[in-house]
Amino acid sequence: MERENIDALWIQGSASNNPAMAYFTGTVHLSDADLIIQREEEPILYCNSMEREEAASTGLRTVVKDLNAYLRSLKEYGGNTNQAKAQEIKNILEDLGLSKCRISVYGRTELSKRLGVLNNLQENLPELELVGEGNKSILLNARATKDKTEIDRIRRIGAITTSVVGKTAQYLQNCQINHDEILVNSEGIPVTVGEVKRKIELWLTELGAENPQGTVFALGRDAGIPHSTGKADDQICLGKTIVFDIFPREAGGGYFFDFTRTWCLGYAPNAEAQLYLDVKEVYDQIMTELTVNVNGAVYQERTCELFEERGYPTQRQNYQHQSGYVHGLGHGLGLEVHERPALGVGAGPDDILSLGSVFTIEPGLYYPDEGMGCRLEDTVWVNLDGKIEILAEYSHDLVLPMKHWSE
Amino acid sequence: MERENIDALWIQGSASNNPAMAYFTGTVHLSDADLIIQREEEPILYCNSMEREEAASTGLRTVVKDLNAYLRSLKEYGGNTNQAKAQEIKNILEDLGLSKCRISVYGRTELSKRLGVLNNLQENLPELELVGEGNKSILLNARATKDKTEIDRIRRIGAITTSVVGKTAQYLQNCQINHDEILVNSEGIPVTVGEVKRKIELWLTELGAENPQGTVFALGRDAGIPHSTGKADDQICLGKTIVFDIFPREAGGGYFFDFTRTWCLGYAPNAEAQLYLDVKEVYDQIMTELTVNVNGAVYQERTCELFEERGYPTQRQNYQHQSGYVHGLGHGLGLEVHERPALGVGAGPDDILSLGSVFTIEPGLYYPDEGMGCRLEDTVWVNLDGKIEILAEYSHDLVLPMKHWSE
Repeated sequence: MERENIDALWIQGSASNNPAMAYFTGTVHLSDADLIIQREEEPILYCNSMEREEAASTGLRTVVKDLNAYLRSLKEYGGNTNQAKAQEIKNILEDLGLSKCRISVYGRTELSKRLGVLNNLQENLPELELVGEGNKSILLNARATKDKTEIDRIRRIGAITTSVVGKTAQYLQNCQINHDEILVNSEGIPVTVGEVKRKIELWLTELGAENPQGTVFALGRDAGIPHSTGKADDQICLGKTIVFDIFPREAGGGYFFDFTRTWCLGYAPNAEAQLYLDVKEVYDQIMTELTVNVNGAVYQERTCELFEERGYPTQRQNYQHQSGYVHGLGHGLGLEVHERPALGVGAGPDDILSLGSVFTIEPGLYYPDEGMGCRLEDTVWVNLDGKIEILAEYSHDLVLPMKHWSE
Repeated sequence: MERENIDALWIQGSASNNPAMAYFTGTVHLSDADLIIQREEEPILYCNSMEREEAASTGLRTVVKDLNAYLRSLKEYGGNTNQAKAQEIKNILEDLGLSKCRISVYGRTELSKRLGVLNNLQENLPELELVGEGNKSILLNARATKDKTEIDRIRRIGAITTSVVGKTAQYLQNCQINHDEILVNSEGIPVTVGEVKRKIELWLTELGAENPQGTVFALGRDAGIPHSTGKADDQICLGKTIVFDIFPREAGGGYFFDFTRTWCLGYAPNAEAQLYLDVKEVYDQIMTELTVNVNGAVYQERTCELFEERGYPTQRQNYQHQSGYVHGLGHGLGLEVHERPALGVGAGPDDILSLGSVFTIEPGLYYPDEGMGCRLEDTVWVNLDGKIEILAEYSHDLVLPMKHWSE
């Protein structure tokens, strides 16, 4: 905080789906709170009366907000919630001697409900400076390296993830196949992407995970577009590329994992097999080169170089490319799917692979017009010996042999 | 928009866990987009290149953002993402002729990443006015009444909710009971709140719902505190108050439902039975009085009156009360658990029960120090005949008879 000349952090909003708050409170039921963290002081959690025991369970110092005072000022301001809430926080900041300070503002909250409050507060406290630090914030820096407890939690959600990937593979491999090489269930009805995704949801829930951002299970052309999630009605058939990218979270809003495999059921067409071989080679090469204390951008450059050597267009030649290697090599991971360090476009001087960094390595190639793509992704960390370690191991195989079919 | 003198809405962020965006895009995979809605113009969705097809699937007019231009300006600004993003949106607003307008800003986004961008934009476009409308925003007004499609969706998630409530009741009622009147599983191990919640998660997932904010399953003292969610290790026993408040959402980030029952297994102690009778009477009375086009605040007053007549302290006497009737009567419901109209503290002149309004009715009484509480909650709507209709019917019974036990 000293380096950035920030006097306090002010984190607002609920504890669910709000990583900045959850980093301090854990996953408790707080629908709307304010956490103030001053330099070298104990953090203070301001909560409403109904949630006083949940707030206390965080172990943080807790102050119950005065609802009577809030309602009096709401009345005074003719029902204007922006003004009444600004008044409430103004009182808190004045009590803490923070009304003339530089405060960094955090919290995943609805802008339409917060911006008016912040503007109002600024008008009433002209010497207060409310800072939005952007992608290089103090808190994102703090969150960029993980301690042992965090690594253990990420490992556990990683084990859940690969377990569900294994169940998915097994389910597909055991399906019957009709004369059009389409997977069918025991009643002869084609298996769809939607059905597979429903099973994935169920397996994740059974194992204690949640899946707030859904799953990518993309076939053919969709597999050729990195963020296409797959069409629910698509039928699953042999030989077609499947990009399966799964990024669940500990139930209740904890740590994420992120993992991708590319599969062809039964057999792989030659063009896809070649894509896969090249992605796998680049993946293996990068994994041997990753070194502690090096900037993530170095490896994006290196990945582009490796793909270009193999004749593929890459993002560094043109950021709008839609074929070839069209995205970054990876990203930090934690309470959000995308955290620091960045290993792609937008990596800055602070995006260092440090001891305790957790990030993904996910090279890929995309050819939507040819109905194919390939991405391999693992979540790794820099362990305390400075070595790169995969947090959940799983086979990288492209072709999944089918129980009821052979070439 | 005319009434509020707003020229455009600017909605930012992802399409998941972001109701303002989801209201227009539906539940697609957009990790970071900008939606601009000008008065009497077709909305425009600005997306990144990787998500172009997901964006197009919304049916909205889509523009792919120029990543090359963004990265050039990121370099120019020495890696400052606040400045580079402000530049990107400045170009968009200038293109649309909106750089000297009053724009209302929306989106559930991380403040630390947005505030710097907004401040920067404001500096570069001094004639632009960025407005945070607060709780009375244009969009919240638009969302406060639901059309037929929305009602159908809320009904469906309501049916899922009551189905899961039924499964939960049945599961509890079929449990064995040990000599301490504690529910045990087939191996004689006590059934805990954590176990019940895991089953609820699973049933919800099976039926196509998600549960982003968890479930309240609160025993005894916790039942006496409206927002206590219940302790995972608590064992479930006969005669103890259970407040079960469940608020799941359509999978993928759609509409919520909200529902509460208070249960005693086997038998109810006299004090709890009396609380229940009074809550039920007030609930029934309020349900007969609800009238279209009346302000929600009227019914909070009336509920306080009814509870006071029965000798209970209420919130209107002191907003910090922790015993008696300590919260509002209800709240609007839709893409968020709490929407307009409000039927409690903070209801303003616009909080009218209009045709198409969807809201909860949830009177309750709380006595944490006596280890009990009672709340009954249903989600209702004002149908097109102006009648109040419960969106998912379910028995209000307090006592659940146990299969393997009788008094």
